[in-house]
Amino acid sequence: MFFAVLQLIGGVILSFGWIPQIVQIVKTKSVKDLNKKTFWLLLAGISLMEVYAVSLAVDGVGYAFLITNSMSLILILIIIGLMFKYKKS
Amino acid sequence: MFFAVLQLIGGVILSFGWIPQIVQIVKTKSVKDLNKKTFWLLLAGISLMEVYAVSLAVDGVGYAFLITNSMSLILILIIIGLMFKYKKS
Repeated sequence: MFFAVLQLIGGVILSFGWIPQIVQIVKTKSVKDLNKKTFWLLLAGISLMEVYAVSLAVDGVGYAFLITNSMSLILILIIIGLMFKYKKS
Repeated sequence: MFFAVLQLIGGVILSFGWIPQIVQIVKTKSVKDLNKKTFWLLLAGISLMEVYAVSLAVDGVGYAFLITNSMSLILILIIIGLMFKYKKS
């Protein structure tokens, strides 16, 4: 139980951790140091995790992971969107 | 089982996804678009996950999560190290 709580807090921090990055991109409009391949891979990894998270929720194990992972998925999608918007053509 | 495999593949992709970012930083020596707060939060989140991963391994649940999470932890530490090395003072 204690360890599961640590995992949950870790998941929340991992999700919300992307917010300062988003704020910075919006402010600076600069994304050149962010690696495109890395963010596509993060998107792929989190998407696979999302399938697992949905299966946990369907099985009645709980919604915590689904919520934090969905949050991460949305924030990574926003970052990838911003990378497209601000990339130098 | 199928969903657990997806989670494992997701975890592997999430770990190795950081490698192109590391390669890019080493090549460009530029880190200004990477948000420091975000990477400290990722480090904190993954560290908490690591405690959970160790508890799973100790309980005999398995080593897969410990291995992928440790990999992520090391790669994020490398990125933070590079951010210190290449930050403009």
